[in-house]
Amino acid sequence: MKIGYLGPPGSYSYEVACQYAAETAGAAECIAMPSFSSIIEGVEQGQLDTGIIPIENSTHGAVASVMDLLANLRQSSVCGEMVLAIEHCLLSQGTSIESIKHVFSHEQALEQCRGFFSSQHPHMELIPCSSTSQACEMAQKYGNAYGAVASRAAAQLYDLAVAAQNIQDNAFNQTRFLVIAVTKTKPTGRDKTSIVFAFPDDCPGSLFNVLKSFASRNINLTRVESRPAKHIMGKYIFYIDFSGHVDEQICIAALAEISEQVCWLKVLGSYPIDSRRMGR
Amino acid sequence: MKIGYLGPPGSYSYEVACQYAAETAGAAECIAMPSFSSIIEGVEQGQLDTGIIPIENSTHGAVASVMDLLANLRQSSVCGEMVLAIEHCLLSQGTSIESIKHVFSHEQALEQCRGFFSSQHPHMELIPCSSTSQACEMAQKYGNAYGAVASRAAAQLYDLAVAAQNIQDNAFNQTRFLVIAVTKTKPTGRDKTSIVFAFPDDCPGSLFNVLKSFASRNINLTRVESRPAKHIMGKYIFYIDFSGHVDEQICIAALAEISEQVCWLKVLGSYPIDSRRMGR
Repeated sequence: MKIGYLGPPGSYSYEVACQYAAETAGAAECIAMPSFSSIIEGVEQGQLDTGIIPIENSTHGAVASVMDLLANLRQSSVCGEMVLAIEHCLLSQGTSIESIKHVFSHEQALEQCRGFFSSQHPHMELIPCSSTSQACEMAQKYGNAYGAVASRAAAQLYDLAVAAQNIQDNAFNQTRFLVIAVTKTKPTGRDKTSIVFAFPDDCPGSLFNVLKSFASRNINLTRVESRPAKHIMGKYIFYIDFSGHVDEQICIAALAEISEQVCWLKVLGSYPIDSRRMGR
Repeated sequence: MKIGYLGPPGSYSYEVACQYAAETAGAAECIAMPSFSSIIEGVEQGQLDTGIIPIENSTHGAVASVMDLLANLRQSSVCGEMVLAIEHCLLSQGTSIESIKHVFSHEQALEQCRGFFSSQHPHMELIPCSSTSQACEMAQKYGNAYGAVASRAAAQLYDLAVAAQNIQDNAFNQTRFLVIAVTKTKPTGRDKTSIVFAFPDDCPGSLFNVLKSFASRNINLTRVESRPAKHIMGKYIFYIDFSGHVDEQICIAALAEISEQVCWLKVLGSYPIDSRRMGR
């Protein structure tokens, strides 16, 4: 099995891909991909069996570019979720934190540690780059004055020292990843379904009517997000995650009702709930 | 009047601040601030009369860090909105686009032009930095091989040439800015109100019940957004913009009903709708 993740190795996506590989029966190979869109393309065109992509972080929120990619899935769908506890470390070649003047990392990781830097190291310059593992490469390349925000696992992989650990502002920091594949997942009795839809017109009560189709059946919504429709300011498409599997009668009935109220509805997939998301 | 915006000069925020200054009676001074939080602090502590902050872009969506800051407003509130048409240009010192190897800009601006670069200039390296105007400073400093994605106005300010214009992937690209001040805005008959709220528990139908308070009064919602509550994965706070002013009876009644269903409700402000948001 070929599992695609956002490379280079050492990123949090890499950790999740390794974990997914370990939980999978048979031989599995983790393949570093250059972008989220290349992961999805790889799955759709058959070079990859599975893709691992981050969808939301408990501090920073939705990964906007991934949300937009999901709306355009063709053959593939969401067949699983995995939640990873994120513990950011400040890594560098030297052992002294005082020598670090510039810190690289993915913008989301820097955001999640903003309080640590502004209160304890206000003079360090924070420089966004494409991934936490790219940040490690830069810290490795440029020497003592450069640091990277990344995982403890990345420190080992890039031969860097841990100058400070658990530096994220929220002690509780998790990222939820989706597993993308062309196969569908059968009901397990403890599933979640993700959908995306748009309304034909901006009329009062349109979102209300969709939520009514869920509320009247006592179906719990676990997530409601909006994204811009892109062709006009003030028009949105909506993403909803709800408890249940798309093969269950109650969900079939709710979706049938909703499809009459919207101009576009796509079921992104039904998949088992990762119970690690249930809190501390 | 002192108007704070995200500096340095030449950013899109700068353009909006200048426009706001031009529309304001009396002398107005635009002041470059280092961050969104410093703009809000400046307004709350009286060094600034007004702050201009971007809240959403029609292609890229919500500005997450600003959403989070709004939830923590104390004395200040939203007293206006301004919509700016965004036309990105590729700027550099040289006149030849072929010499550009690396392109700086704010991450959102790079995102909005991703298709242009991947289809027409796949070999240019895209490097995120803190603002479009910082990108211009870098392009100015490092020479011909470096470009910046910024506005035409920024080209003049930083003495750069326009190597390509209107390079954003969506011809229609607008950013909505909020005007923050400690004063409140009186009803004009064509207003919008922004609120943020949280639920005590994750129970089916909670968001549905809030939307019902609007739908039953025929109050149109112009925006529904969620942001993570940050202490646990899968818990959110919600932002809603609706038509109407908080001083109008119908809105007072809706908010009174909602306040009984939520554990936290904050009115961020009521303000006149900027009619430029109504489409092309």
